[in-house]
Amino acid sequence: MKAAIIGGTGYGSVELIRLIHKHPHLEVGTVVSNSQAGKNFSETYPHLSGIIDQPLEKFDADSISNKNEIVFLATPSGVSSNLVPQLLDKGIKCVDLSGDFRLRSADEYEKWYKHSPASETYLNQAIYGLSEIYKEKISNSTLIANPGCYPTASILALLPIINTKIADYESIVIDAKSGVSGAGRGLSLTSHFAEINENLKAYKLGEHQHIPEIEQILSDENGSPINISFTTHLVPMNRGIMCSVYVKLNDSFSTEEVHQIYNEFYKNKPFVRVRPQGNIPSTKEVQGSNYCDIGLHVDKRTNRLTIISVIDNLVKGAAGQAIQNVNIMNGWDERTGLTDIPLYP
Amino acid sequence: MKAAIIGGTGYGSVELIRLIHKHPHLEVGTVVSNSQAGKNFSETYPHLSGIIDQPLEKFDADSISNKNEIVFLATPSGVSSNLVPQLLDKGIKCVDLSGDFRLRSADEYEKWYKHSPASETYLNQAIYGLSEIYKEKISNSTLIANPGCYPTASILALLPIINTKIADYESIVIDAKSGVSGAGRGLSLTSHFAEINENLKAYKLGEHQHIPEIEQILSDENGSPINISFTTHLVPMNRGIMCSVYVKLNDSFSTEEVHQIYNEFYKNKPFVRVRPQGNIPSTKEVQGSNYCDIGLHVDKRTNRLTIISVIDNLVKGAAGQAIQNVNIMNGWDERTGLTDIPLYP
Amino acid sequence: MKAAIIGGTGYGSVELIRLIHKHPHLEVGTVVSNSQAGKNFSETYPHLSGIIDQPLEKFDADSISNKNEIVFLATPSGVSSNLVPQLLDKGIKCVDLSGDFRLRSADEYEKWYKHSPASETYLNQAIYGLSEIYKEKISNSTLIANPGCYPTASILALLPIINTKIADYESIVIDAKSGVSGAGRGLSLTSHFAEINENLKAYKLGEHQHIPEIEQILSDENGSPINISFTTHLVPMNRGIMCSVYVKLNDSFSTEEVHQIYNEFYKNKPFVRVRPQGNIPSTKEVQGSNYCDIGLHVDKRTNRLTIISVIDNLVKGAAGQAIQNVNIMNGWDERTGLTDIPLYP
Amino acid sequence: MKAAIIGGTGYGSVELIRLIHKHPHLEVGTVVSNSQAGKNFSETYPHLSGIIDQPLEKFDADSISNKNEIVFLATPSGVSSNLVPQLLDKGIKCVDLSGDFRLRSADEYEKWYKHSPASETYLNQAIYGLSEIYKEKISNSTLIANPGCYPTASILALLPIINTKIADYESIVIDAKSGVSGAGRGLSLTSHFAEINENLKAYKLGEHQHIPEIEQILSDENGSPINISFTTHLVPMNRGIMCSVYVKLNDSFSTEEVHQIYNEFYKNKPFVRVRPQGNIPSTKEVQGSNYCDIGLHVDKRTNRLTIISVIDNLVKGAAGQAIQNVNIMNGWDERTGLTDIPLYP
Repeated sequence: MKAAIIGGTGYGSVELIRLIHKHPHLEVGTVVSNSQAGKNFSETYPHLSGIIDQPLEKFDADSISNKNEIVFLATPSGVSSNLVPQLLDKGIKCVDLSGDFRLRSADEYEKWYKHSPASETYLNQAIYGLSEIYKEKISNSTLIANPGCYPTASILALLPIINTKIADYESIVIDAKSGVSGAGRGLSLTSHFAEINENLKAYKLGEHQHIPEIEQILSDENGSPINISFTTHLVPMNRGIMCSVYVKLNDSFSTEEVHQIYNEFYKNKPFVRVRPQGNIPSTKEVQGSNYCDIGLHVDKRTNRLTIISVIDNLVKGAAGQAIQNVNIMNGWDERTGLTDIPLYP
Repeated sequence: MKAAIIGGTGYGSVELIRLIHKHPHLEVGTVVSNSQAGKNFSETYPHLSGIIDQPLEKFDADSISNKNEIVFLATPSGVSSNLVPQLLDKGIKCVDLSGDFRLRSADEYEKWYKHSPASETYLNQAIYGLSEIYKEKISNSTLIANPGCYPTASILALLPIINTKIADYESIVIDAKSGVSGAGRGLSLTSHFAEINENLKAYKLGEHQHIPEIEQILSDENGSPINISFTTHLVPMNRGIMCSVYVKLNDSFSTEEVHQIYNEFYKNKPFVRVRPQGNIPSTKEVQGSNYCDIGLHVDKRTNRLTIISVIDNLVKGAAGQAIQNVNIMNGWDERTGLTDIPLYP
Repeated sequence: MKAAIIGGTGYGSVELIRLIHKHPHLEVGTVVSNSQAGKNFSETYPHLSGIIDQPLEKFDADSISNKNEIVFLATPSGVSSNLVPQLLDKGIKCVDLSGDFRLRSADEYEKWYKHSPASETYLNQAIYGLSEIYKEKISNSTLIANPGCYPTASILALLPIINTKIADYESIVIDAKSGVSGAGRGLSLTSHFAEINENLKAYKLGEHQHIPEIEQILSDENGSPINISFTTHLVPMNRGIMCSVYVKLNDSFSTEEVHQIYNEFYKNKPFVRVRPQGNIPSTKEVQGSNYCDIGLHVDKRTNRLTIISVIDNLVKGAAGQAIQNVNIMNGWDERTGLTDIPLYP
Repeated sequence: MKAAIIGGTGYGSVELIRLIHKHPHLEVGTVVSNSQAGKNFSETYPHLSGIIDQPLEKFDADSISNKNEIVFLATPSGVSSNLVPQLLDKGIKCVDLSGDFRLRSADEYEKWYKHSPASETYLNQAIYGLSEIYKEKISNSTLIANPGCYPTASILALLPIINTKIADYESIVIDAKSGVSGAGRGLSLTSHFAEINENLKAYKLGEHQHIPEIEQILSDENGSPINISFTTHLVPMNRGIMCSVYVKLNDSFSTEEVHQIYNEFYKNKPFVRVRPQGNIPSTKEVQGSNYCDIGLHVDKRTNRLTIISVIDNLVKGAAGQAIQNVNIMNGWDERTGLTDIPLYP
């Protein structure tokens, strides 16, 4: 099955290509980059020399739908809202890795993203591609809004205790940390080596566009609104997200009881690994893989639960989760092409 | 004035030497390392070649007190509790950079540090060397318990809103991140390059020995007990601590009002720089310097204040603060020898 | 086909496990670690949680040969010289990733490695596993001496101009740089994060044990002795080796002509990618993969050829090349299980 | 003495400000940045908050010469060739940190820099500011061409054996490695964090503009032309340059004899530290300081001398050396303001 990729020169695209290349049922089809059209892909990414040497193409919905069976959009905010309708109209399924179809509310999108929202028709059609809870909907969908990197780690950290009686949802604090590849390949002083190397930086305090995405899903699952405090930090490494999540427990639960709840919740979810007691995951332990690892600790002094969740932002936080969704859409085992061991060290 | 240093081969000691060397009134005296006695200091630290070439010596209270006028102890936990009494008895003043004299309660020390505590006599004599609030006591002291790295950043972040009516002290969450030099020069897998490079790791959840130190000072200043949730993380960089502190506000305060409170509180404290609105410090912006920089943000959605404080763990978090205390003990301007611009980038 | 791994807790072993896990014809069999026997492998390497959860075992030649069909030895120098004979006597084939069987001369081994050499009988039996030139011998071998990381990058850089008339072999200078994983998982100050991060260090000047290995193979291929100047450096990154090789050309060759020679030499070697003119590879462009990428430049001012070769030290420089050798020994396509795209960025 | 700085927002400027701030006889005067004029300097560099809060100004030769007594130009190539004449005409002395006045030959400048050269009058007036050999000329100069970063490390590595009979000057190979701050603060994909972190990259093979500078000085000192092979590499760290220099010895010299030559040559040069035998410097051992540390090894197998020289590219390779030159121009001790211990770790 040929897969087209739009937004061809970003890190999301190149990670999609890495994963498609090793997938038994997928093959790299058209790769679109309007800015670099005509260039060979391996000129932009020499690590692909001799492997993927095809030219980058301009966007053409006809050509894409004729030559491919699925489209991944790894474009900046405000782009796929225009492209997806053209593609869906040609009858080709889309997985959008941007934020354009994640928020149900067009107003919220405009408020947080400062772009024009997608039209309601298509927003309504989009399925939020978090397979750990929406697997069935995903299997029947034509348009997937692939979850954001921070939301994936944050939501998976919290889901097992949402809509239970054990936690105080007004107390949720998410301290999120990301490697710099999450800021993309576009040049900026924030991603300039000498500025961020040997540095740790908090950014977008209270303004990150992933806040409404996390709240929407948590509120949906809870059946009533949840607001979170959410702060993002840049860490001097390439890959990896860690969310350190803090939440008050309503009664005195032990770490052991909380482990049981998490183990039960994720027992059939192949990519969520709940670590045993006393074992807290670090980001490198999922590097290059589709795993989300979770560690838990109950602090009896404060009756607060600390949840540490880690993902590779480019895999489970982007391209890997997109492949997982395509697996489900096609009725394949959701692990297909995603079973490799993390790259360590 | 000659200054002796005990614990000569750790990062705390070598940073003390860097700062003493540029101090107008201090000079490096005896350097003690029982394990490396006889070796030349520049063999252990070649960057000192041609600058500090003296031999390391064994501990000898007589010799130290004869040849020096002040002693810095940069030893692991459980060591200075034995050495300080011998030195004080010889009439020489001590600044202890370890945790041995920070907790007033011997029981608490034993519980968190798993070592035998110092004797009550000396615990009572020790002054907690956070000059931003205890300057006068420091000026009259003979034994300084130099604050820990995390406590320095955490306490300075919170002080202006302690013992006010504006915050809910049960809601305090401190998410602390440190560069790897904080783990010292002792070999361990946690500090092994390939393990922690390109990695982010949470550690000692709910068990960090700095928790009671932070609570002791905040409770003292508050006049009633404060408990905190405190989690530490290792970041793949050498120097720098960031504390991201989250606290619920009791009423609806604006970021501007909170800024006024902080600016007022720190107006005569030369090493605390409260950043203007919208300006959040990063760790590299204090690298190699004695500054503690603070950024503030009020999230109106959740009525929660986020405080970002950064220090260089080896300077304001250790050796620099020790020098600042010695300045105060000697009646010198507290900035003496500490006015250099941070090393950037 | 079950593969045993001896030396189970080093980086070589864990990389073998990553590659065996994705190989269609291989499966992880016995994993031996005398020091950690009884422990579960994922305790030592939590990234393997839920994937490889088997216990580490003590060395037992009988048990290994009964349960496995091939053995990889990823042990420190001086260990496999004792173990390999026991294993070969049981009729099981061995791939040794250490240096114990690489040097034909027992005296040279003793001189450079400072260990007792393997016995001549087994040294004579060993085939140097550089498949780009010894593929046929490898296919018939029972004992492979898997090439060292630096030798792989150095020899592949030079082979096309060895035994030609175009270069002055007395002029060869190899400036080699490696990521820190090459120093292994054993603790040492050299691999301590705060010491090597933000640092660049030359080490073992003129004394590296890979010198005689490089000279042996180059001299063999040349038909007469070649001596090299070889210096190694540690670079603050996890993976990757770059050899910058300098050699005088006898006549005035253009970069283009040199490219033709290299392209011709490597035209059927799937893992050597000779980059086009003006395109110089960097280490990350082969990260996690079995490629050796080569860039070439002729400096007309000095008539000197500069060759830049890069590998991932743990893949083509160790575990990947070992798998490539096993593929050849079994008559499989040498690329089997090794075709993944490098992890970038 | 007030010092003006032109090119105010680059890393060279900010390092000058750090060093001027701690210099007993210098004070930061006018800071010029045409692109950011009007902005406060600490907006661009928040680490200067509360220390250097003055506005950036547009270039105005009159104003600069009225308010300052010395000018540092830390501008890109092709800029100071225009500005310096205007400043010298006002009677103010200039230290140019760019390459515009380093090459005596206007033609060579144009060939390597691809900019129009400075006029001959001013080229003839410029003194190459390598104080270890041109101290007297510097003391009488009005225009200093401050040496480049790579040339400083390369020339200091080779000087003691130039114009002797012991080395073969046609055999010189310089393998140079630099931290990423050397590439400046201008945005480019090469300095983009995710591209160069965990990566090692060779660049500008045979084309680096520092080649003619190194050759000019070595040839001058030798009395006859010397050509070198020179290759540059980017290392994933902020600061530091290492030059690994390889040169054939004409006779059989021991490492000891070579040490004597170096020790003798540098005995009165306070910033060059020749390390004892067996002791090879690493870049972090000079971090933040004006030292150039040199290690030596004679490989008897090949009769080749390896010289390892390290500097901080922003200090001895730029701002520190500029201060050293100003010290000499003013008759101060050349060490003034430059005696701080390197920042380690």
